[in-house]
Amino acid sequence: MTKGRLIGVGLGPGDPELLTIKAVEVIRAAPVIAFFAKKGRRGNAREIADRWIPADRIELPLYYPLTTEISFDDPLYIATLRAFYEAATDELAAHLDAGRDVALLAEGDPLFYSSFMHLYVRLRERFATEIVPGVTGMAGCWSRAGVPMAWGDDALSVLPGTLSEDELARRLVETQAAVIMKLGANLPKVRRAILRADLLAHAIYVERGTMAGETISKLAERGDEEAPYFAMILIPGNGRKP
Amino acid sequence: MTKGRLIGVGLGPGDPELLTIKAVEVIRAAPVIAFFAKKGRRGNAREIADRWIPADRIELPLYYPLTTEISFDDPLYIATLRAFYEAATDELAAHLDAGRDVALLAEGDPLFYSSFMHLYVRLRERFATEIVPGVTGMAGCWSRAGVPMAWGDDALSVLPGTLSEDELARRLVETQAAVIMKLGANLPKVRRAILRADLLAHAIYVERGTMAGETISKLAERGDEEAPYFAMILIPGNGRKP
Repeated sequence: MTKGRLIGVGLGPGDPELLTIKAVEVIRAAPVIAFFAKKGRRGNAREIADRWIPADRIELPLYYPLTTEISFDDPLYIATLRAFYEAATDELAAHLDAGRDVALLAEGDPLFYSSFMHLYVRLRERFATEIVPGVTGMAGCWSRAGVPMAWGDDALSVLPGTLSEDELARRLVETQAAVIMKLGANLPKVRRAILRADLLAHAIYVERGTMAGETISKLAERGDEEAPYFAMILIPGNGRKP
Repeated sequence: MTKGRLIGVGLGPGDPELLTIKAVEVIRAAPVIAFFAKKGRRGNAREIADRWIPADRIELPLYYPLTTEISFDDPLYIATLRAFYEAATDELAAHLDAGRDVALLAEGDPLFYSSFMHLYVRLRERFATEIVPGVTGMAGCWSRAGVPMAWGDDALSVLPGTLSEDELARRLVETQAAVIMKLGANLPKVRRAILRADLLAHAIYVERGTMAGETISKLAERGDEEAPYFAMILIPGNGRKP
């Protein structure tokens, strides 16, 4: 019997119209639709893809055992998450072994900071795989903010807000354009780093870009109250402009 | 009379199935379709969008006066390109003033290293605008190479191959993941920088990702013969992996 294929499907930044033609085709054709979600929630990925999923599909929600209750570097966090990914791998493998293609949904792009990758690296030796790239969350945010991000010979740095203030400030000084992701409780530290790099006047804060509840403002006009984990800051480049 | 809207439409990395649902809708609805092309060519953007453009549309090709015959920092290059963008701006403005929406096609994403931006900044004060984000060329390349690019707290640097060897080597040492764009004749220099950063074993070369003639190989297995300008090198991150 032919085994099924694992297909990583990028869903884009949140607006359901920002799926690609290919993503919609894959979702309509795959007998099994898998997606990550917080326990007790339907999950953002399932929500974004909702209008494209036929009613008769096998749905395979994968519920995270925890989100931010434990620190990322706690051995318990790592062990718990590893066990979760192993169990999810087994669930997908059962369908793939039975010859059913599995479309595993990924917000944004499947190979760019996505949970999809944790199952992909565990399954790709055993099964055929395909990746359908998606519009990244950051591209969704800068399109809504309407800011040209990188010009000509600009370098662009994508930086996690989890870096230290020193590290952030140093990298911001050296790059032309930057996206700072994973803000959450890191926002006050990130702002201090941006101030040290003298870039506050250029920094734009975007929350829920392309989705309901979208917020876009100059960072200078937003307070330090905690931001959602997936909010981001954009610092556009200013390169070669004939 | 209501003026037309300027809509920047991301076409994605090259495969026509990687346009978004929204991009296809905009292309089907807009009375005027504008796109950049090399003189005497139909142009890659027009080619990618071909199957989605209805036959009765007004097409507005914008032919670059030059490509790489003159150096980027030559004053003649800058003046020539500026005159070209000004003339193209006038052509688009005539349609917009007449109340016709103009969809200006952009390979990849409209606000990420795209020629679209040069007209956008000249027109956005005078006309309503909308941006439809696209899958970037780099996401198309890493999806075809099948490499997870950035994990957990990885930083990712997008670097133009036009940087000096020292600058490239220094930035490669400091980042976790990198994409080096604009290879062309810069490839030998880029390779030396990658060697100095001890990353040759991880570097992947991708040419025409998602398109006919696609080439993917380890950089170590490719010679230094000149690469196309839009070829790129991927150096995947290796971060937090429970």
